[in-house]
Amino acid sequence: MSKPIYVLNGPNLNLLGVREPHLYGSVTLEQIRGLCEARANAGGREIVFRQSNREGELIDWVQEAREKASAVVINPAGYGHTSIALLDALKAVDVPVVECHLSNISQREPFRHHSYVSLAAQGVIQGLGPLSYELAIDAALRLTGADRVA
Amino acid sequence: MSKPIYVLNGPNLNLLGVREPHLYGSVTLEQIRGLCEARANAGGREIVFRQSNREGELIDWVQEAREKASAVVINPAGYGHTSIALLDALKAVDVPVVECHLSNISQREPFRHHSYVSLAAQGVIQGLGPLSYELAIDAALRLTGADRVA
Amino acid sequence: MSKPIYVLNGPNLNLLGVREPHLYGSVTLEQIRGLCEARANAGGREIVFRQSNREGELIDWVQEAREKASAVVINPAGYGHTSIALLDALKAVDVPVVECHLSNISQREPFRHHSYVSLAAQGVIQGLGPLSYELAIDAALRLTGADRVA
Amino acid sequence: MSKPIYVLNGPNLNLLGVREPHLYGSVTLEQIRGLCEARANAGGREIVFRQSNREGELIDWVQEAREKASAVVINPAGYGHTSIALLDALKAVDVPVVECHLSNISQREPFRHHSYVSLAAQGVIQGLGPLSYELAIDAALRLTGADRVA
Amino acid sequence: MSKPIYVLNGPNLNLLGVREPHLYGSVTLEQIRGLCEARANAGGREIVFRQSNREGELIDWVQEAREKASAVVINPAGYGHTSIALLDALKAVDVPVVECHLSNISQREPFRHHSYVSLAAQGVIQGLGPLSYELAIDAALRLTGADRVA
Amino acid sequence: MSKPIYVLNGPNLNLLGVREPHLYGSVTLEQIRGLCEARANAGGREIVFRQSNREGELIDWVQEAREKASAVVINPAGYGHTSIALLDALKAVDVPVVECHLSNISQREPFRHHSYVSLAAQGVIQGLGPLSYELAIDAALRLTGADRVA
Amino acid sequence: MSKPIYVLNGPNLNLLGVREPHLYGSVTLEQIRGLCEARANAGGREIVFRQSNREGELIDWVQEAREKASAVVINPAGYGHTSIALLDALKAVDVPVVECHLSNISQREPFRHHSYVSLAAQGVIQGLGPLSYELAIDAALRLTGADRVA
Amino acid sequence: MSKPIYVLNGPNLNLLGVREPHLYGSVTLEQIRGLCEARANAGGREIVFRQSNREGELIDWVQEAREKASAVVINPAGYGHTSIALLDALKAVDVPVVECHLSNISQREPFRHHSYVSLAAQGVIQGLGPLSYELAIDAALRLTGADRVA
Amino acid sequence: MSKPIYVLNGPNLNLLGVREPHLYGSVTLEQIRGLCEARANAGGREIVFRQSNREGELIDWVQEAREKASAVVINPAGYGHTSIALLDALKAVDVPVVECHLSNISQREPFRHHSYVSLAAQGVIQGLGPLSYELAIDAALRLTGADRVA
Amino acid sequence: MSKPIYVLNGPNLNLLGVREPHLYGSVTLEQIRGLCEARANAGGREIVFRQSNREGELIDWVQEAREKASAVVINPAGYGHTSIALLDALKAVDVPVVECHLSNISQREPFRHHSYVSLAAQGVIQGLGPLSYELAIDAALRLTGADRVA
Amino acid sequence: MSKPIYVLNGPNLNLLGVREPHLYGSVTLEQIRGLCEARANAGGREIVFRQSNREGELIDWVQEAREKASAVVINPAGYGHTSIALLDALKAVDVPVVECHLSNISQREPFRHHSYVSLAAQGVIQGLGPLSYELAIDAALRLTGADRVA
Amino acid sequence: MSKPIYVLNGPNLNLLGVREPHLYGSVTLEQIRGLCEARANAGGREIVFRQSNREGELIDWVQEAREKASAVVINPAGYGHTSIALLDALKAVDVPVVECHLSNISQREPFRHHSYVSLAAQGVIQGLGPLSYELAIDAALRLTGADRVA
Repeated sequence: MSKPIYVLNGPNLNLLGVREPHLYGSVTLEQIRGLCEARANAGGREIVFRQSNREGELIDWVQEAREKASAVVINPAGYGHTSIALLDALKAVDVPVVECHLSNISQREPFRHHSYVSLAAQGVIQGLGPLSYELAIDAALRLTGADRVA
Repeated sequence: MSKPIYVLNGPNLNLLGVREPHLYGSVTLEQIRGLCEARANAGGREIVFRQSNREGELIDWVQEAREKASAVVINPAGYGHTSIALLDALKAVDVPVVECHLSNISQREPFRHHSYVSLAAQGVIQGLGPLSYELAIDAALRLTGADRVA
Repeated sequence: MSKPIYVLNGPNLNLLGVREPHLYGSVTLEQIRGLCEARANAGGREIVFRQSNREGELIDWVQEAREKASAVVINPAGYGHTSIALLDALKAVDVPVVECHLSNISQREPFRHHSYVSLAAQGVIQGLGPLSYELAIDAALRLTGADRVA
Repeated sequence: MSKPIYVLNGPNLNLLGVREPHLYGSVTLEQIRGLCEARANAGGREIVFRQSNREGELIDWVQEAREKASAVVINPAGYGHTSIALLDALKAVDVPVVECHLSNISQREPFRHHSYVSLAAQGVIQGLGPLSYELAIDAALRLTGADRVA
Repeated sequence: MSKPIYVLNGPNLNLLGVREPHLYGSVTLEQIRGLCEARANAGGREIVFRQSNREGELIDWVQEAREKASAVVINPAGYGHTSIALLDALKAVDVPVVECHLSNISQREPFRHHSYVSLAAQGVIQGLGPLSYELAIDAALRLTGADRVA
Repeated sequence: MSKPIYVLNGPNLNLLGVREPHLYGSVTLEQIRGLCEARANAGGREIVFRQSNREGELIDWVQEAREKASAVVINPAGYGHTSIALLDALKAVDVPVVECHLSNISQREPFRHHSYVSLAAQGVIQGLGPLSYELAIDAALRLTGADRVA
Repeated sequence: MSKPIYVLNGPNLNLLGVREPHLYGSVTLEQIRGLCEARANAGGREIVFRQSNREGELIDWVQEAREKASAVVINPAGYGHTSIALLDALKAVDVPVVECHLSNISQREPFRHHSYVSLAAQGVIQGLGPLSYELAIDAALRLTGADRVA
Repeated sequence: MSKPIYVLNGPNLNLLGVREPHLYGSVTLEQIRGLCEARANAGGREIVFRQSNREGELIDWVQEAREKASAVVINPAGYGHTSIALLDALKAVDVPVVECHLSNISQREPFRHHSYVSLAAQGVIQGLGPLSYELAIDAALRLTGADRVA
Repeated sequence: MSKPIYVLNGPNLNLLGVREPHLYGSVTLEQIRGLCEARANAGGREIVFRQSNREGELIDWVQEAREKASAVVINPAGYGHTSIALLDALKAVDVPVVECHLSNISQREPFRHHSYVSLAAQGVIQGLGPLSYELAIDAALRLTGADRVA
Repeated sequence: MSKPIYVLNGPNLNLLGVREPHLYGSVTLEQIRGLCEARANAGGREIVFRQSNREGELIDWVQEAREKASAVVINPAGYGHTSIALLDALKAVDVPVVECHLSNISQREPFRHHSYVSLAAQGVIQGLGPLSYELAIDAALRLTGADRVA
Repeated sequence: MSKPIYVLNGPNLNLLGVREPHLYGSVTLEQIRGLCEARANAGGREIVFRQSNREGELIDWVQEAREKASAVVINPAGYGHTSIALLDALKAVDVPVVECHLSNISQREPFRHHSYVSLAAQGVIQGLGPLSYELAIDAALRLTGADRVA
Repeated sequence: MSKPIYVLNGPNLNLLGVREPHLYGSVTLEQIRGLCEARANAGGREIVFRQSNREGELIDWVQEAREKASAVVINPAGYGHTSIALLDALKAVDVPVVECHLSNISQREPFRHHSYVSLAAQGVIQGLGPLSYELAIDAALRLTGADRVA
């Protein structure tokens, strides 16, 4: 059976639904986990869904994914704009990486326009709220040859 | 019945499958039209699929879409990086706009990193080849309340 | 009798009154044509009033104005910020050129602060809504020696 | 009866007609006062016309205009490019502010391209010589509902 | 027999000999066509010589040249500095591309120093007036193995 | 009774009194804790005083403060200049945030001039050594309606 | 007895409570004078409280403070961002200088982020409204060894 | 007899000998006046020697010098780096202008490297302390045809 | 006996020999530990060799090295380019610090050209693969007076 | 008889055919001399062909060419991007100067995009390998009225 | 007796009186040598006057001056803007260094505004033509305690 | 037997031990030659040790090294920051190149942070004084397979 898709979430995403809802909406991270799971299961795949406020822990998980994942979906949040270390971890991953963002970062403050993670991701999906995650799961399934996508 | 989704393609996309296949792959624009149509139909929607090398014609079509489309999917190609006029046309559109790119423009020349179109699009999907289009259609369907997405 | 004043309008101005009224107001382009005509006629001059979404068509008209106009009033809209080609066309015009903008572009996004057209225009009038056009007509009349301005 | 229009002139404008006539023409500031007065009177309004080489005095006058003027026409000259203090004074003014320049500052040295005053002015008119003032008076009259403009 | 050389001319070049002769000289575009033709014929080749003020039309012609030309000589004029779309069209051309400019763009305004077209052209020739075209034709002939160059 | 004030200290502040005393003085962090406590107690408030070298731990504490603090005083040290993740955590905090720095960061290396934390803090106090903390506590008390400040 | 604390206020602060209250609040400068006086008196010190719209007058006062003040509290307003002359005056002052701002200038327009005055001030306090002044007085008292601070 | 040489001194120069002597030395402005006078007298010329902390007053004096001076020596101090208004006043002066600085501004903070005054001055002399003034007087004498220079 | 040399390794270096071998070679971090140990032992010194993906943990170790190490050799990897916090920790270290990199960072992406760590390191050695470490150990030995270096 | 054409070659061009042949091709400088000579002779002109690694020697030769050459063809190689001294020498030359480059410098590293020499050259020819030289000779012949060009 | 003053001249100054006389005047370098000699002799000093087009030779001479000169007057011409090597040579010189320029480099192309030599020179004199040299000699005499200056 | 290692030294290094000893130490270049020689001999290799103030001579030597050296150690001094010509010479060298600097150039003026030579060097060693040279020799030996390094 296929390895699971790792869905990794960066800092403050544990506050989803609470923090600045005008930017990020009212859906919680737990609900997003549910959406991702449903989507992946429909494609015959499991997910490993995690969140951390710590750059180093995210790097550890990316390194773990090198071995154990069929694909990585990552919303790096604030670390996407600043972490070369995270970029380097992702460049060492051979399976497909899809970056996603709830908001459209091109429309926010200039310091959010650039993402180091984009330099290592195959695809980027942003601005669609929780749907960004769902489409990223779909992309991960398709890029790894899942026979069926919901 | 719902209005169709406008799928608009910018300059040189008519050469898809021919021009720089290492960057854009070997799928033709005609094949992408097929993929989009299938995807949209499965969601109960028609598409209007067009390509132009002319900035002004794309603007005309965007203006037309204000009246006749339920959503706009646009791959602005080269004009995305330079056309404030296209941005202005899209800002006048009230239905959802989803921008898509075959390649991951963050990994290309610096002058391709910025997209004016992103300032008017709700969502952006890039780097996934023809799949970028398919997911953009899915997004358009979901954002406009299609009861069913493939 | 004097040659007419060419009043040329750039992309998306056909949507005036519709598009982003908080920025551009609710007056339509047709109404602006009326205001300009009244103003010019009072000064004993006709106008040629056109709008295009196409950069090349605007250039054609500017070239036409070289022969047929006593003055040019131009609201280049989005092309003002990006079109060196339009600038070059205007530099070949010997009659007075007056640039006008409905909004005060100095107060908008940074990419709208610079206008290539300003490098070829004798005068610039901005921020006064339709009145920008009326004053531009007045300026054109005065710069071309109209004996009487309303 | 309506309050007067304040016409404020920045540093070195007292030298008009003398200083660099190839840039500013040979009309004196006294003559411009006459043109403005005639224009305003024709619209049923008085003017207060002043010039100062001192940034602080200009700020004082702008503050005075908050109480006593129906509109402000200002040619900030050199202070327009450097004075945030003048900008702040103008932002506290509720009546219409129209900025004017004799020359087209977009065609001069780069350090003259930006105007802080433009961030507080409703309209900007530049490049038309003394006519810039006349049109600014017209704009002030129209923006404050003068029943009749020459 | 060899395919012709496409000689494509950008916006405002139809005004050659008229527009700013101190920069571009007094030779007309028609005369340049004659010079190019003579030069190409002497090398046993035909030319297709066109001018357009429209970016999209130039792109169409470049795409046409992919099939029908043995080489492309292009003076992109104003579009050379701004058109990524034109660059993309040229990158899809497999035959030699030679860019030419009448004036030495390195000595003009900063916004004319950079040319997107140069990123796709094999060679660049500038500053020599009509001779720039003639040498570009020579280069095209040599790069495509013409047995004899005038 | 009121919730405590969280006083959070960033990386290397545990070395205070030791590291570069010419910049940061000879007072230890333990002594600063004492000063803050005295100040807060005088205003009828407790403090929670912590230091960490880890960005993620600071983010965790800021998130904890969302629930448990009446105000946050934060000296982000090195992370203030680089951490968008910390900024995002602070933006999710509804109680007053006061940033403080021992040194005047405007007088140090350019890379210390900008603070992301300042984008989320209501007030900033810098350059006054341990007094910066004391005044920040005072500010926190005042901003949260403490009836009495020492 | 100790020399007084000079509290100097830059341009437009005389409009406090009137000008842009959403940015600066509704407290008047006269009320701030009262707050400062109370605070200073409680610490056994007098204040000299002045406001000017003129850069040169502020410089004169700073020079006067070199002789007559025990400390300087200065809110330079608009001149803080542009006046090297004011910076130079402050660098010649040997007693403590504390800069204060009502608003948090880091959150405003980019041209307000930098303060020349900060290069000469020992401490900076911003964003706390009138409380910024009060804390600055406290800081001035403490830095000059006042035996008692309210 | 020849008109006098105007020697104009900008802000804070009245503190010479007091302010930052490691940068500006211990000579007072009064002593520099003496040196200049001696030098000028030896060349058969009088001087008018003034200092002001006010930009506007300096501009007034420059305008006065247009009529009454044979040459202008100016040490603009802090205003040299920021005052376009002063530059404009100097550009209206037809007699020779020599700028001088006590310190070598190229070796100081970056914001002191550029001088607007240099754009209007014929010559610049810097870094030589009071000798900068003396040589500037010599230059003024020579440029205005003084028969004898000390 | 001398204190050991701390050899600290930043994020992703645990993947050495695996991650992007064309950039970093096929030697593992364990093998580098061996090389360093042999080199240090030959100089009569022990090493403490550690790796972490966490910025905060690296800072902790640097602080520990202040007490327990005779020298620090550090390959900060991705954190070298972004971590002011790490820089601050190193600036508090009194023993020699030598920075090393496997690759020549000057030849890589622009965002890798700058290293904050270099601002605190006495020496920098880069581009020589594992040899960079060996030479860094040699340097540490020499700078700390080891009587003998291999 | 006409003076010769000086063909001057900058640093490292003596290694042509050896150094980085993927960039510069395998033709040697001696062969290029032959091509130039043939070309010039066909036009009835001699050449003086030199190469130096020394900036100063190139300047000497350019100065010599002022007297002895009918035209200058120069490939400045690395000095073209950095030598203002070489630019100044060329600006003193009254005969036509044609700059040539083997490679298309617009497609190489950013520090090669700008050429100081281009500011003094009438024409620039680049990207065509040895043909760049041949066309430059042709241009020199034409610009100096050679009756016949091969 | 005192050591001589070295007067060193950079590239192309041997062409003085010939090259671009509108910028540099018609005086020859030989005449300037005469002026300098007269001036120095009047102060009881000899000069060593040299010119070179070679950066390395200028550096050699500066190094020679370390031993043999009482002061250095240098007009670095083009090398002043680009030569860090020349700067380093001058920083090793303990006697006074005075930089001079014939033209006012602040009024020329941007790439001439900065001078590396200014970072090592005590004084700078520019814009006064040959008089710049004479005043530089005067300065050198005064700075080295010559008892008498002409 | 192996070819020698070329040790090339740029401008002003002949002054080592004399020039700015606080930056470069008191060891002379002759002593460094000794250290290098000892080191190389211990590894069974000769050295060729040279210094020049002339960019062109350094280029000549690098070209010579292409044939005659087994490795190149180069301290380019001031030319490292400015010489593209030197970079090009080094890129044509196939044997290992190691760049060294006595000081840590990352801690000096910004214009010394970038080194063109680093773009062609395999390794870079800086900040360790004469030890930088010794380690560079070691590196050269190791990279060229010397069987034994001291």
